Amino acid sequence: MADVAFDYENLMEVEHGLAQRDLDNVEPRLQEAADELLENSYGFMRLPKTGEHAAACKEFAENIRNSGATDFIHVGIGGSALGPMALQRALNHPYYNLLPVETRGGPRIHFAENTDPNSLGAILDIVDPANTWVNVVTKSGTTAETMANFLVIRDVLGDYGGRAVFTTDPEEGYLNRISAREGIRTLSIPKDVGGRFSVLSPVGLLPAAVGGLDVDALLRGAAQCVDEIEAQGAKHPAVGGAAMHYLMDTARGRNVRVMMAYADALERTAAWFVQLWAESLGKDGKGSTPHGAVGTTDQHSQVQLYMQGPQDKVIEIVEVEEHPRDLIIPEAYEDLDGVGYLGGHTMGELLNVECDATRRALAEAGRPNCTIKLGAMNEENLGYLFQALEAQTAIAGSLYAVNAFDQPGVEAGKQITYKRMGRPGY
Amino acid sequence: MADVAFDYENLMEVEHGLAQRDLDNVEPRLQEAADELLENSYGFMRLPKTGEHAAACKEFAENIRNSGATDFIHVGIGGSALGPMALQRALNHPYYNLLPVETRGGPRIHFAENTDPNSLGAILDIVDPANTWVNVVTKSGTTAETMANFLVIRDVLGDYGGRAVFTTDPEEGYLNRISAREGIRTLSIPKDVGGRFSVLSPVGLLPAAVGGLDVDALLRGAAQCVDEIEAQGAKHPAVGGAAMHYLMDTARGRNVRVMMAYADALERTAAWFVQLWAESLGKDGKGSTPHGAVGTTDQHSQVQLYMQGPQDKVIEIVEVEEHPRDLIIPEAYEDLDGVGYLGGHTMGELLNVECDATRRALAEAGRPNCTIKLGAMNEENLGYLFQALEAQTAIAGSLYAVNAFDQPGVEAGKQITYKRMGRPGY
Repeated sequence: MADVAFDYENLMEVEHGLAQRDLDNVEPRLQEAADELLENSYGFMRLPKTGEHAAACKEFAENIRNSGATDFIHVGIGGSALGPMALQRALNHPYYNLLPVETRGGPRIHFAENTDPNSLGAILDIVDPANTWVNVVTKSGTTAETMANFLVIRDVLGDYGGRAVFTTDPEEGYLNRISAREGIRTLSIPKDVGGRFSVLSPVGLLPAAVGGLDVDALLRGAAQCVDEIEAQGAKHPAVGGAAMHYLMDTARGRNVRVMMAYADALERTAAWFVQLWAESLGKDGKGSTPHGAVGTTDQHSQVQLYMQGPQDKVIEIVEVEEHPRDLIIPEAYEDLDGVGYLGGHTMGELLNVECDATRRALAEAGRPNCTIKLGAMNEENLGYLFQALEAQTAIAGSLYAVNAFDQPGVEAGKQITYKRMGRPGY
Repeated sequence: MADVAFDYENLMEVEHGLAQRDLDNVEPRLQEAADELLENSYGFMRLPKTGEHAAACKEFAENIRNSGATDFIHVGIGGSALGPMALQRALNHPYYNLLPVETRGGPRIHFAENTDPNSLGAILDIVDPANTWVNVVTKSGTTAETMANFLVIRDVLGDYGGRAVFTTDPEEGYLNRISAREGIRTLSIPKDVGGRFSVLSPVGLLPAAVGGLDVDALLRGAAQCVDEIEAQGAKHPAVGGAAMHYLMDTARGRNVRVMMAYADALERTAAWFVQLWAESLGKDGKGSTPHGAVGTTDQHSQVQLYMQGPQDKVIEIVEVEEHPRDLIIPEAYEDLDGVGYLGGHTMGELLNVECDATRRALAEAGRPNCTIKLGAMNEENLGYLFQALEAQTAIAGSLYAVNAFDQPGVEAGKQITYKRMGRPGY
């Protein structure tokens, strides 16, 4: 069973928090949004229970792991990269690519996102082209950054067709045409699943499986979340949380939503959430600004602003009860008051004490905050968390009365780029 | 000569931009702030020209590089880590630690910031304890996260004294007492240089030199910036920029300041700036929220919000004219309109075209933005950039009428932590 809990007490009980009447006012619209979510059969709500394409991803990943591949380059940007990176960072060894191959049991994993020659050049500096796989992930097959990376990598890998996979639209787009010509295998991104909601489609499942993660547990955790939302509707805390975050922005002028994760391994999960929230809701002049932070690190960077800056934020802490490992702090310098007290505690204990201290200090200073608590860092809990935040974002889209599933604002920049790069028809 | 240019045209000329009268209103206070900056002889404004401790850092780093050290663990958090990480990320190979030792010419470099057992455990998994150096960076010697990391590392390294250095206050604090007992060498953080302004002190210089960076060029670029500010005063664009960002927040309600760097290697530079701006200005209910982003990547994550979300942001683009390397996109699939046009261009060209496209699209949509342009990614330009942003932040502190050099808001959380961890006297 996934163990993920949402605690909104410090959004209600603190000075400058929400009042019950705020929630009562929005309750009918929340109810409507929850009904809509369940009636509309969105693709992202279907994926966890159907587990569609999961078997193909696992089989494909197993082939890659058994092929003697040294490296796996995942080429994608935005929704085609953030979910895969979040999973890899959350659930694998922080120095995965530096571990001996026997420990990893699979190839090193690289992400080619940006069209930054310094980054792709670095990947190409260290891989062995003859033993490197490439996974090209773009639904349309026209994403300029992804296709540019692909064209460079393709050239370096030589006879690459047998070591390539395209994760793309099931029928349309350029990658299907290239696949047909060159006999390259493809995995499908379901037509009704958009990029930022695609982490539990082959976009996320293939690289997760290549990295040795338990794809079934990931889907199981997400399915548990769907079951609970179906049973509880607007009473599910992630769904209700949409109303709270919506109100904090629109009724309280708190236009910044900070996700502060107390685990380094969740830094990319916060980045994944930033895209989900920003691109889904930031339209028609609406949408709060999501901002990622890491505790304790950002206590020494941003907490000053959160504590004493303007009352324009909501801080959402993500806490991990049991860390994947722990280290005892050895006893030493016991005569030095400011150092000796640390001995005998563990680093995980210190991390979680600081997490709680930040939460309490924020609350005492009248700074609204909330907490998502993961019992442990594992596939089930991450699957649940992704699913809950996707549902919350869709609900928030209904409350803001925006289309959470499009991104018309990025077209203008693309048009200018296409024209300047000489794409026919622009 | 450093080549760093500031362009504020799109803060003035676009719809919703600033008017000349806004600037005229703040002009006397800006002038006063600039005078104050130059009269006050702040430590951070002195460092580049005195180059104090630079020789000691270079010599020490050379010893480490020649010692056969396999690994160098830099232990520090907040201002003791962000500058060093920014330098390493901006100027060294993106996969520095994965390169062969002959290519690196020095040890692998690890940063132990957070008290996250999963992160420190990962470092300890891969280092060879007998050939690993540790640099403990904390001015007070009481930073809990740093001392916890140190106590664990110290225990693992065994007889570590000859492979340790403490970067700390020149006289006070626990690290000096430990140094005296155990004969550990120290490097000094000047008393009048605070953590977030310390990147050009031994805090940043030692790890930069260990990583083989050109510390003299870094200081030279920063010194050029100081010279120019001394000559131009309030007319220096970084100084004047403080007034623009201040006005955008206080007179236009734009409480989010985005730094969007069009180079992956500047991602940590943005994180360094986030601390500098947030912790310096976020007090007395004031301060805009700095937010880091990377282009093109975040075009696929956050630009939707920047283009069509609320008018509550200023976007500051950091552009690199000449990237450290470039890759030609090979010609292929010329019959496929949406792919073939890329061939023959370079990745760096595509990156910079997209940068310009984003800037133009923002301006055309009435979204105020500005640009910092680096001619190239090198030590001189980074030194200039750090110095300019530090000066800008200090000037902004005067305009906001806050003390830019303290951080009283983080005390409450520390007190709770100390009490819960059993530190004597709490």
